[in-house]
Amino acid sequence: MRVYNFSAGPAQLPLPVLKQAAAELTDWQGSGMSVLEVSHRGKDFVACAADAEAAFRRVAGVPDNYRVLFLAGGATGQFSAIPMNLAAPGATAAFINTGQWSKKAIKEAARQGVNVVTVADESASSYTTTPEPGSFTVPADAAYLHYTPNETIGGVEFPYVPDADDVPLVADFSSTYLSRAIDVERFGVIYGGAQKNLGPAGLAIVVVREDLLDRARPDVPAIWDWKVMAGADSMLNTPPTFSIYLLGLILHWIESTGGLEAMGERNRAKAERLYAAIDASDFYTNPVEPRSRSWMNIPFTLADPALDADFLAGADAAGLTNLKGHRSVGGMRASIYNAMPDDGVTALIDYMTEFERTRA
Amino acid sequence: MRVYNFSAGPAQLPLPVLKQAAAELTDWQGSGMSVLEVSHRGKDFVACAADAEAAFRRVAGVPDNYRVLFLAGGATGQFSAIPMNLAAPGATAAFINTGQWSKKAIKEAARQGVNVVTVADESASSYTTTPEPGSFTVPADAAYLHYTPNETIGGVEFPYVPDADDVPLVADFSSTYLSRAIDVERFGVIYGGAQKNLGPAGLAIVVVREDLLDRARPDVPAIWDWKVMAGADSMLNTPPTFSIYLLGLILHWIESTGGLEAMGERNRAKAERLYAAIDASDFYTNPVEPRSRSWMNIPFTLADPALDADFLAGADAAGLTNLKGHRSVGGMRASIYNAMPDDGVTALIDYMTEFERTRA
Repeated sequence: MRVYNFSAGPAQLPLPVLKQAAAELTDWQGSGMSVLEVSHRGKDFVACAADAEAAFRRVAGVPDNYRVLFLAGGATGQFSAIPMNLAAPGATAAFINTGQWSKKAIKEAARQGVNVVTVADESASSYTTTPEPGSFTVPADAAYLHYTPNETIGGVEFPYVPDADDVPLVADFSSTYLSRAIDVERFGVIYGGAQKNLGPAGLAIVVVREDLLDRARPDVPAIWDWKVMAGADSMLNTPPTFSIYLLGLILHWIESTGGLEAMGERNRAKAERLYAAIDASDFYTNPVEPRSRSWMNIPFTLADPALDADFLAGADAAGLTNLKGHRSVGGMRASIYNAMPDDGVTALIDYMTEFERTRA
Repeated sequence: MRVYNFSAGPAQLPLPVLKQAAAELTDWQGSGMSVLEVSHRGKDFVACAADAEAAFRRVAGVPDNYRVLFLAGGATGQFSAIPMNLAAPGATAAFINTGQWSKKAIKEAARQGVNVVTVADESASSYTTTPEPGSFTVPADAAYLHYTPNETIGGVEFPYVPDADDVPLVADFSSTYLSRAIDVERFGVIYGGAQKNLGPAGLAIVVVREDLLDRARPDVPAIWDWKVMAGADSMLNTPPTFSIYLLGLILHWIESTGGLEAMGERNRAKAERLYAAIDASDFYTNPVEPRSRSWMNIPFTLADPALDADFLAGADAAGLTNLKGHRSVGGMRASIYNAMPDDGVTALIDYMTEFERTRA
């Protein structure tokens, strides 16, 4: 019995992918070995990693002048690696602060000695907004502008790509990676952990424009040295092989379901239906300004917080799990990533409607 | 059909562990979710990680004044993290150089600005030796002494634990982790990647004495800040959850087979049988001085290198895979980690004997 799993991450994965991984976990491609057991330098795994990269490039539409890196340590590791790769100590780096993940990125960059300039800060709205386009100015000498396209905790998503002029734009796509088509050429660096839309925890996928590969500090750790890793096909050391293998399966699944245009339409429709249900009710509330509402993470509160525990217990019993909101926000949060089917959203809306009818 | 897989890493895993992981990959513990899909902060996974740590402590005999950390980035990441955690820029760190992995650790430490003092260097023997006990002096002001108990490529293993007096001893156990009982109290820090004896690639296990947690540089990346990670039960950020889950299964498998004393006896016996077969023949040669021969990685050459390709092709056909030696050493290498059964070593010896009889 599978449930609908609304976890913010690690998160629900496509069932066909899990079934294939399970079926071949003791004997991969007739090798008599698990994919967990093969050398990353053997021809079979090298082909597997190359296939995952090629599929990522096809699905995301990555231009030839960008490198795709598979690195260990997740997005939090890249919070440290980004300033190490792009900014000398004391150099200015610009940030847009839209919530907790923005703040973590800022904290780590400051720890690496960059001069943090926060060009826009949405704390006044309790992080329920994104800045208006054109409402902020990026210092021309900034090494980069960093922003968080989707804030997993606040459920706030940029409805546009910020304009940074000639300053390289760096974006933490962790919680909205490949959720829809994007124009990669707008960005200097796209990065994120895989564990929401793209597989198990432990893998960071970094897409970096080639002209940015010459800016690293001499003391950047080798496993985060983008140029070294680009030259080594991400295999300077042993990479997280199982994560790369599953990433490949998930990318093929995305292609089999119509690619990112179709994925984006499904994700938009899922989110719109859930927001419509929330907005049609006085019992449920989403705090985010409508234009900045996330397609991926949808927080909502009940009119009477005393009912939260009953709501969650009933949801669990109905096979709708991990709906409890982040401790810093409270209430509920439904994370509906790529692998959440339409039926899961329908089941949640039906449950919410019935709960309100009987308990409000 | 499973083969005997002599890969140096990622490497053969216990079949019962793979079967259990496959059986529950779509529904873990009756949750209706995969272990790949659950939040690292949910009670089920928190219990899973706590169980893995407790099992590690039991199996390895970790005293209470040591912390066990599960970190991303493998041993190569720790090559950077160790000086960041233990030595200020310019401080002296001592190293024993017994081969390629020692050299990588030294290179990364130098990149982090420590004053590298190599107290013993086995390059003169082409890395077929370890230094005699007492033959080297560790500077009393060294922040730590680093060594590599087992060199995966050269097949060289220390038959003793070096004496560093009051200098903290730091050991890269990647390729011999939990292969036998050790006295943890001899060490300041034990670390290693999991992908030889302890699971899939992507996880570093760091065992650190608590009094060493106060020495980190202010700019150590948060995900490698041992003190921060010790305070967060290794969950400052999303850890490599699947690797931790599999580590737990493997530790329980080690316990079910008698623990580290029994494991060490089996590993000793496997290695002795293979070395005996090599030494009894003029056709096969192992270059390592007998007292420093690895129990884990056994390189050997054929008298006539022109037969190498035939040897490997015949081995593959006999279900004995990944025997090709490292490109820097040539010949063959049989890695016989914990999960390689006695029968695998017997099958290899039988094949070697028959190959010599028919082709020498």
